[in-house]
Amino acid sequence: MIAHECGLFGIYDHDDAARLAYFGLYAQQHRGQESAGIVTLDNGIMHMHKGMGLVPDVFSESSLAALPGKTAIGHVRYSTTGKSSPRNAQPLLAHFKGCDICLAHNGNLVNAAELREELENEGAIFSTGNDSEVFLHLLVRAMRDESPIDAVRTACSRLKGAYCFVIISGNTLLAVRDPYGFHPLALGRLGNSPVIASETCAFDLLEAEYERSIEPGELFVVDASGEHSLRLSGEFPKKPRQCIFELVYFARPDSYVFNEQVYVCRKQMGWQLAYESTPDVDFIMPFPDSGVYPAVGFAQCAELPYEHAMIRNHYVGRTFIQPTQTMRNFGVRVKINPVRAMIDGKRICIVDDSIVRGTTMMTRVKKLRELGAKEVHIRISSPPVRFPCHYGVDFPRRGELIAAQCEMDEIMKKLDVDSLHYLSIDGLLRSVMHSDSYCLACFNGDYCVPCESCRKEALEACGSATK
Amino acid sequence: MIAHECGLFGIYDHDDAARLAYFGLYAQQHRGQESAGIVTLDNGIMHMHKGMGLVPDVFSESSLAALPGKTAIGHVRYSTTGKSSPRNAQPLLAHFKGCDICLAHNGNLVNAAELREELENEGAIFSTGNDSEVFLHLLVRAMRDESPIDAVRTACSRLKGAYCFVIISGNTLLAVRDPYGFHPLALGRLGNSPVIASETCAFDLLEAEYERSIEPGELFVVDASGEHSLRLSGEFPKKPRQCIFELVYFARPDSYVFNEQVYVCRKQMGWQLAYESTPDVDFIMPFPDSGVYPAVGFAQCAELPYEHAMIRNHYVGRTFIQPTQTMRNFGVRVKINPVRAMIDGKRICIVDDSIVRGTTMMTRVKKLRELGAKEVHIRISSPPVRFPCHYGVDFPRRGELIAAQCEMDEIMKKLDVDSLHYLSIDGLLRSVMHSDSYCLACFNGDYCVPCESCRKEALEACGSATK
Amino acid sequence: MIAHECGLFGIYDHDDAARLAYFGLYAQQHRGQESAGIVTLDNGIMHMHKGMGLVPDVFSESSLAALPGKTAIGHVRYSTTGKSSPRNAQPLLAHFKGCDICLAHNGNLVNAAELREELENEGAIFSTGNDSEVFLHLLVRAMRDESPIDAVRTACSRLKGAYCFVIISGNTLLAVRDPYGFHPLALGRLGNSPVIASETCAFDLLEAEYERSIEPGELFVVDASGEHSLRLSGEFPKKPRQCIFELVYFARPDSYVFNEQVYVCRKQMGWQLAYESTPDVDFIMPFPDSGVYPAVGFAQCAELPYEHAMIRNHYVGRTFIQPTQTMRNFGVRVKINPVRAMIDGKRICIVDDSIVRGTTMMTRVKKLRELGAKEVHIRISSPPVRFPCHYGVDFPRRGELIAAQCEMDEIMKKLDVDSLHYLSIDGLLRSVMHSDSYCLACFNGDYCVPCESCRKEALEACGSATK
Amino acid sequence: MIAHECGLFGIYDHDDAARLAYFGLYAQQHRGQESAGIVTLDNGIMHMHKGMGLVPDVFSESSLAALPGKTAIGHVRYSTTGKSSPRNAQPLLAHFKGCDICLAHNGNLVNAAELREELENEGAIFSTGNDSEVFLHLLVRAMRDESPIDAVRTACSRLKGAYCFVIISGNTLLAVRDPYGFHPLALGRLGNSPVIASETCAFDLLEAEYERSIEPGELFVVDASGEHSLRLSGEFPKKPRQCIFELVYFARPDSYVFNEQVYVCRKQMGWQLAYESTPDVDFIMPFPDSGVYPAVGFAQCAELPYEHAMIRNHYVGRTFIQPTQTMRNFGVRVKINPVRAMIDGKRICIVDDSIVRGTTMMTRVKKLRELGAKEVHIRISSPPVRFPCHYGVDFPRRGELIAAQCEMDEIMKKLDVDSLHYLSIDGLLRSVMHSDSYCLACFNGDYCVPCESCRKEALEACGSATK
Repeated sequence: MIAHECGLFGIYDHDDAARLAYFGLYAQQHRGQESAGIVTLDNGIMHMHKGMGLVPDVFSESSLAALPGKTAIGHVRYSTTGKSSPRNAQPLLAHFKGCDICLAHNGNLVNAAELREELENEGAIFSTGNDSEVFLHLLVRAMRDESPIDAVRTACSRLKGAYCFVIISGNTLLAVRDPYGFHPLALGRLGNSPVIASETCAFDLLEAEYERSIEPGELFVVDASGEHSLRLSGEFPKKPRQCIFELVYFARPDSYVFNEQVYVCRKQMGWQLAYESTPDVDFIMPFPDSGVYPAVGFAQCAELPYEHAMIRNHYVGRTFIQPTQTMRNFGVRVKINPVRAMIDGKRICIVDDSIVRGTTMMTRVKKLRELGAKEVHIRISSPPVRFPCHYGVDFPRRGELIAAQCEMDEIMKKLDVDSLHYLSIDGLLRSVMHSDSYCLACFNGDYCVPCESCRKEALEACGSATK
Repeated sequence: MIAHECGLFGIYDHDDAARLAYFGLYAQQHRGQESAGIVTLDNGIMHMHKGMGLVPDVFSESSLAALPGKTAIGHVRYSTTGKSSPRNAQPLLAHFKGCDICLAHNGNLVNAAELREELENEGAIFSTGNDSEVFLHLLVRAMRDESPIDAVRTACSRLKGAYCFVIISGNTLLAVRDPYGFHPLALGRLGNSPVIASETCAFDLLEAEYERSIEPGELFVVDASGEHSLRLSGEFPKKPRQCIFELVYFARPDSYVFNEQVYVCRKQMGWQLAYESTPDVDFIMPFPDSGVYPAVGFAQCAELPYEHAMIRNHYVGRTFIQPTQTMRNFGVRVKINPVRAMIDGKRICIVDDSIVRGTTMMTRVKKLRELGAKEVHIRISSPPVRFPCHYGVDFPRRGELIAAQCEMDEIMKKLDVDSLHYLSIDGLLRSVMHSDSYCLACFNGDYCVPCESCRKEALEACGSATK
Repeated sequence: MIAHECGLFGIYDHDDAARLAYFGLYAQQHRGQESAGIVTLDNGIMHMHKGMGLVPDVFSESSLAALPGKTAIGHVRYSTTGKSSPRNAQPLLAHFKGCDICLAHNGNLVNAAELREELENEGAIFSTGNDSEVFLHLLVRAMRDESPIDAVRTACSRLKGAYCFVIISGNTLLAVRDPYGFHPLALGRLGNSPVIASETCAFDLLEAEYERSIEPGELFVVDASGEHSLRLSGEFPKKPRQCIFELVYFARPDSYVFNEQVYVCRKQMGWQLAYESTPDVDFIMPFPDSGVYPAVGFAQCAELPYEHAMIRNHYVGRTFIQPTQTMRNFGVRVKINPVRAMIDGKRICIVDDSIVRGTTMMTRVKKLRELGAKEVHIRISSPPVRFPCHYGVDFPRRGELIAAQCEMDEIMKKLDVDSLHYLSIDGLLRSVMHSDSYCLACFNGDYCVPCESCRKEALEACGSATK
Repeated sequence: MIAHECGLFGIYDHDDAARLAYFGLYAQQHRGQESAGIVTLDNGIMHMHKGMGLVPDVFSESSLAALPGKTAIGHVRYSTTGKSSPRNAQPLLAHFKGCDICLAHNGNLVNAAELREELENEGAIFSTGNDSEVFLHLLVRAMRDESPIDAVRTACSRLKGAYCFVIISGNTLLAVRDPYGFHPLALGRLGNSPVIASETCAFDLLEAEYERSIEPGELFVVDASGEHSLRLSGEFPKKPRQCIFELVYFARPDSYVFNEQVYVCRKQMGWQLAYESTPDVDFIMPFPDSGVYPAVGFAQCAELPYEHAMIRNHYVGRTFIQPTQTMRNFGVRVKINPVRAMIDGKRICIVDDSIVRGTTMMTRVKKLRELGAKEVHIRISSPPVRFPCHYGVDFPRRGELIAAQCEMDEIMKKLDVDSLHYLSIDGLLRSVMHSDSYCLACFNGDYCVPCESCRKEALEACGSATK
């Protein structure tokens, strides 16, 4: 499982600000299950509640009641092993000269370590392990001499990498997206109130209207004087570099993201994939839920039956007791279970969105073989992930990426499949509308924002990719 | 939503009895979300833990640690409004002459009220509102003079209606299914230990082998002397009357139930449905998840594209805070959300498994119309539900069943659809293997086990069905 | 620590019935810390909430909100090792012929086992290990033919031993105390509403007026027709046999119990004790809190300084993590800690209410010796406990009672004290007002209500007492 | 109720560091009930757990298990209305250049606002409302150029006011007490491990040996090289100014504080008080528990009977449901309840440690009058509190201090008492051993460390004191 990105939410001037933030986060729960938090602004005073776990577990009626005010921002954080800690939950809140400032962040700063060192040399203290706190320090320092809007611009001019922020400072709500536009951010409207969310599925739940994407490099500001769409300072790249994995896997299929229809893109990926390589099988089958949409497209293009023969357990996601020792591969098996009668003696084509480490795929194929599958073919609706992401996607380290370590025939052998095909980069770009505006670094190592660690890894990658 | 039936589990002579019961219930969580409970037997002493809520919420490592012993039974209970109460959670446990007896029940006794009155006249006290407690009293009374096995037979001979029981008495585990076999009960094996479950998906999670169905009228017994398959006393019906709604909706599609493949049956229902009535549309779309399997069969038979364009929220099922007043039809909308781009201007055929009250369907069709659907056609993979169930399915009262109240054209009008077709009873029976062994009372009012209340309702039903 | 008895509460026709029951139990928390429960009656329907733990932990605003109605009874249960279980929490609630009946019990039935066997032979099922459930069965059986009042009389006529009950049946609140009056029960009034409690300290907290004691053998009834003071049927003993340990230890010192002032009785016990045996010491010191009141009386009579030099930790009583291995005798030490400066080089007279096993006393004396006490004298404000109680006090088994096992000089040696004196039975009776109405069985083995097990133990006791 | 001060704990190089910190805080729970926290150091990495509530509620076995390491500090925080917030819980933890630094603070900095403004001008961000965070910033800034020990000295040289800190930096544990020594800090030993605590009662529970007080101006350091007792830099006052209210009320009577025996001091205050003014009454009675110790001394000096006739409820302190409207003065009454029989017709002398607002005293005297007390005399074992404290004691504002607002005869009238006497400052100093080393500012307005706000209040105080 690839770690999801984070989800952001913001709303200005609505009587139910906290409650709407709750549902706005709830609809974006797939973007982060580790922690959730909301800050509201009420008469110049900020109120915060955050905690570890899913949105419904972190918030209750009483915790919402303790979040008065008409302006709110919220955050859900993804879960990665090792870094999980209550003090990393967002939004972050700081006091500065009698004022409160809060912000929530989605992304990854390439120069966070350098900035952190510089700030520490000036005596700054850090209370979290988040990159976001670096920005908070830069912002507060800039605010000593500048207006909140100028301070955000000044602070952003120091950042390299991927970032979307929602910020409350004074009585102003700000939303900002980096010039490359790595991560999505959308503007909607509920009555007269502007609403900000990472994904439009949040607007659907609130019955807010989707208006438009916050553009790369845009600084959207709303205060008592109205709404303003400004630009960050500095030079901008010619083309954005949006994260195409949002379309492949992260975003909910009912969302609009980067001005694309996620569902349609995924179906197209399946269609292109079938066009590139259709095996001779009895039927097409997804691993739900991520594989469902490309599988539907694949089956339509290939004119082969679509079967929904892996059953997803709806109650997964809660904390568990430990399985017994006899329950091998429990974590994999508990999520989806094959329909035995559909497997025995069948030639099956599995469609899924990606392979990362390959271990889950290996276990599932093995199970299908045990149940009597005659042939198992794998079709993946994205190119092989061979390079690390430096802009916020938490792929495993290169050494664990099966496609970075192994040639295609080795992978087939490891997975014990009869054939394997990944969608080509070309096929992927053909599946989307704005094919020249995406970051493909995890597929081809082409990093638009370089960093020391990138370079080292890239060199190493070349070595292993050509071996 | 129709109330699910309950789920049972039993295991004999396994070191991890409580933990396996936990996972056996977890896999059957779809059969009951209101409460969960486990009783274990350890050196003649029983230990019980039960509570309101989902299995992972009711049990923790520490509550499992307090359930020692090698024999266990478990129960998940469905949720219906009004009757929800901690004291109705199962298993039930009683003390009698220094011994503990416990049992878990799936079903509904037609003569529970009569038996209860009779028992109360003899001074019996009831501490729950469960029918199951009636059986517990009968069982204990019979045990004054008889062996546990004979006592179960004697007590069952008093019962009319639907029942599956798993029972621990002394050091014996018993499982019994009523002569009509209304509800499913299966026997599996984990190592040398026999395992009992309502559905075989529990065996898959435990990696137990499915052996066979417990037969209608069978009394399966396991104790230190081995396993015994006995028969209940009394005359048996010529044919079982198994609940066909298990195949239509209740059971998990990866389970075997009544010696049928649930997934295959559901796909066949869709296939038969397409054969009976295929509209001229752009694509077929299910309401996930229950509609997915007939929709897949329908699309294959009709040779029309299958689209998965209603997106299910995976995190539903947890307790919620209240939505705001602006969030109309929240409860319906939060579960599944349409992919807007797939709806606008399209002629759509929705496939779903059943319509009960019609309110959910109405709201969803309305939403599709709002999003620009040109035509909306509904195909239902089961016949209209016109009669109440007296054997354990918690349909709404007749007055709320849309098909019992309205003619077909009225329903279409209410739902605001372009066409509507329900699968015929014939088509339904053609979709299963053992077509002469099912109860169809909810469709045709033919009750194999009569009762006063049935008769009255049936009369009334005739009236409304012929009007 | 001797296990406290239980605490009862009842209130009729008050708008805040559940809330007042909560505080009525809270004020009587010292009578039972294991579990707490309240049942209310609202329009013929009963509502129950009970759980393990202290009153404030069992109940919340939301659980009180789920207890509507103007009539309520409540119960706090004492804690003993081994029998602690949620299913033993009270009140008990039963359904019988469409009605609910509930009751709460303080006491111990000497013939419970015989009655239980008889009932089981008639087919009765027990769901708890409480004696109280035996009475519930008898009551329900009697109610088949009799009015609630007559049924209570009939059921009570079968009981031997100690009991106070508060009962709700139909719309009637009943309170009953056994003819020997072993345990206290008091009638108070809040506005026009009658209030029942085990101890009058509950009335003080509610600001209810204390009216009188419910008399031994009295059946107090309140329903729509008014209040009635009736008598149980059968012959009554000439004198009550009230539990004198209520005055020695159990009851709160600010309560009236058995028409006695608890505080005054305890001070008198100390006074009599000093009269019987005053050592030559520097000061008198209690083990708080139970020893404080006799110590105050002792110091006044002996004209010696009273010092409060053992400091009680106010936060004890909550659940703990385990101490480290180096923290010896943690359980004893954490409760009270000596003031070092007051101990070194001093001759000290400790006054406490009783010694049961002697282990706690031993540890405390040892600690005082370690801190440099020159002499340690012990004075106990009750006679030696040598016999088990069969009427509801949970003394340890005879084999663990230090005074049943050892002669006075042995006890002194074991405790390592310079002198030891127990109050004489005569002195004890001189400390109370109604000296001819108390049960002294635990001191002298004179059981007014005999039972098989009593006789056996008594014989054994004679043996050991004369050795 | 006066707000307690905070409690500190530290331990170095012990296998059970976190568990001992738990019990060290538990024993000092009376110093702070709002929040509790522990930080441990394990192989250079710090682990923190803190939360709102009492120690046993904040920590569980599992949260302790997540606190590995052999060095630990802990903190309990007092509760004041308005400022209660999870983010103010201590210890505070910061990251700086790859290292963690943590600290816990007891005290109040007089120049916190100035320092904060200065730091904010340099860009510092604050995440709490604690003074302690100011020190954390100063410390981190100093650490850029200096060793941890020198950095603590440099940072302390900027502070004015009252402070005790325990700090972990690198592998070093540091404990520091300000040159005036306002608050107590003690050094103990458990095996070879040094232990730090605000009060020695923590050592008693751990069975650690008390060694000595950390001296005013001392910087105690322990690291791999051993233990070092250093001095803070700068000039020191000639005499310490220790908070005499620790002896009057805050500290537990079984503690040594400021090289004084708390129990003995309090008894002496009662003795002096009796010497100054003994009324003609039937007996002396404390308001438990704070009044018990001076009352014991008073009764001994006055040769009058001591009665313990106000009964304390042991279960107070937990969260409550709301009382009913009929339960007037519930908050006062629930804590202690008078023994009615001892009050009626009696002339009573109440001894208590202090009067702050006077409202509690007023309610209690009224209750005694209602119960029939013939005369009520009040004796207070400390002088009238007329001035605010700037060094950490949270007295109410001057406008609420009854002694700052009213002349003695007005107070008597308000309280409705027959006589009233406060211990003189002279009498107070005669009750302690080191009479020239205490801060008396709250009694006489003599502030050794001046500040703007002090001066203003002092002026105002003079006005009201002389009117």
